[in-house]
Amino acid sequence: MGPDGSGVLPFRTVGIVGVGLIGGSLGLAIRERNLARRVVGIGRRQSSLDRAVAVGAIDEATLDITAGLADSELTILATPVGVMEELAAAAVAAMPRGGFLTDVGSTKAQLVRVLEHVAGDQCRYVGAHPMAGSEKRGVDEARAGLFDGTLCFITPTTHSDPMATRAITEFWQRLGTRVRVISPAEHDRLVAFASHLPHLAAAAIVNVVPGDALGCAGGGFRDTTRVASGDPRMWADVCLQNRDRILEALGNFSNEVRTLRDILSDGDEHELLAWLEGAKAIRDHYVAP
Amino acid sequence: MGPDGSGVLPFRTVGIVGVGLIGGSLGLAIRERNLARRVVGIGRRQSSLDRAVAVGAIDEATLDITAGLADSELTILATPVGVMEELAAAAVAAMPRGGFLTDVGSTKAQLVRVLEHVAGDQCRYVGAHPMAGSEKRGVDEARAGLFDGTLCFITPTTHSDPMATRAITEFWQRLGTRVRVISPAEHDRLVAFASHLPHLAAAAIVNVVPGDALGCAGGGFRDTTRVASGDPRMWADVCLQNRDRILEALGNFSNEVRTLRDILSDGDEHELLAWLEGAKAIRDHYVAP
Repeated sequence: MGPDGSGVLPFRTVGIVGVGLIGGSLGLAIRERNLARRVVGIGRRQSSLDRAVAVGAIDEATLDITAGLADSELTILATPVGVMEELAAAAVAAMPRGGFLTDVGSTKAQLVRVLEHVAGDQCRYVGAHPMAGSEKRGVDEARAGLFDGTLCFITPTTHSDPMATRAITEFWQRLGTRVRVISPAEHDRLVAFASHLPHLAAAAIVNVVPGDALGCAGGGFRDTTRVASGDPRMWADVCLQNRDRILEALGNFSNEVRTLRDILSDGDEHELLAWLEGAKAIRDHYVAP
Repeated sequence: MGPDGSGVLPFRTVGIVGVGLIGGSLGLAIRERNLARRVVGIGRRQSSLDRAVAVGAIDEATLDITAGLADSELTILATPVGVMEELAAAAVAAMPRGGFLTDVGSTKAQLVRVLEHVAGDQCRYVGAHPMAGSEKRGVDEARAGLFDGTLCFITPTTHSDPMATRAITEFWQRLGTRVRVISPAEHDRLVAFASHLPHLAAAAIVNVVPGDALGCAGGGFRDTTRVASGDPRMWADVCLQNRDRILEALGNFSNEVRTLRDILSDGDEHELLAWLEGAKAIRDHYVAP
């Protein structure tokens, strides 16, 4: 490793805790890009671990986190955020002292605070959040290209080891993501709007459409509500961890729907057109077709 | 034609007024499935008509609706709903007496009332609405398979000629759609929830996400808001024509978002999980993966 944390790659051993869609895709991408000599997957179910080995996502598998992380230079927590705190404690106890620890959780402020505390002086933790995923789950959905060209947040704090920040940053860059280094709090504000609000709005749409109307839904409904098929357990944890920011986003959203209802009640064609044109212009500007 | 309106296909001449995404796709599908011997496209811009001929969507093109519909056994209005009333009057004046007239507008109650009045005794009008489309526009986006397997509403009233209803129904069945015959009012209630609400919610999401958060939007945001890139002019017309039903849907939606905010404010994990699980169960049941 260089004195600035560069040149740390490839790692000798990377441990991935949780080999589902994200963990499995990470393993595939790490192996394809030769970012580690050995990838060890740790999971709760032997069947998932067997599948992860079968599809080539990991070199070795174990149900035993202590044995699995004994040589881990970099440990990546890739489970739902709800169980990360508990697993982090086991990971820190198992890892070599001074090893790197990171996670891929979709919320950061609360999680980073806890994981930094858990890591203590034993290992060097820096949080990350790749903006990649799917409403689907499991290692059978994993693919090496999942992270290609996506955005990945790295969320160091004043407590972070700068060398760890650089190593995790380089790691995600080598995985093909566009890295953005940002504070945990700022991260949570951004994803509350860009990710959590669309998710909850999609679920709210599904919940109010009457059954007979659901039966005639077309492509617009399908795409608008796709994320509502995501894992409820995972999303409940995300919502509770980022509750204040999400409430802020939902408050703004409610006001915007109120504005639209007023425009529509007034039957004001020009205002309605301007409102729709505004949304189209923003989306066309920010989202590639 | 049989006495029940069956066996009317193929038509000798079909006239399509408006050769954009929908009109162009209709022309391609009609020609591919041999549902007419001749397809005439009527448009406002020569360049679009030239493209429609070039891609094989129509046999002949004209800017002159009177000349274009002189032999039309079936005329399909495939323009935005906002200009259909005006074009229907010109179409009825141009068509052979007793010819079939239909449209593909996304709202029905108000439009059907007006078009039935315009058609009078001159031609036999029955409304239709294929639930197919895209946020994209223009004949270059047209494709013969656009309607395959989609739902198509046919919206006759007590004033409709039963033979015309059967002919239009058979026409859309032969185009590969699943036909559902329903009243215009019932149609408008269903699409207010299944189509117009998702569209407006998507636009509202786009309008409240701050610029810096838009810059880090991922796949969830992209899909959830796709429809917000649709044509504002077309959607403003749809919203105004189906205003009361949409206001009802938006009212229910606002209440649902209120419910969610209350659950989240309370931090009630079980209620939140149940709310998210409900949405997932409904969507997974109604939308094919």
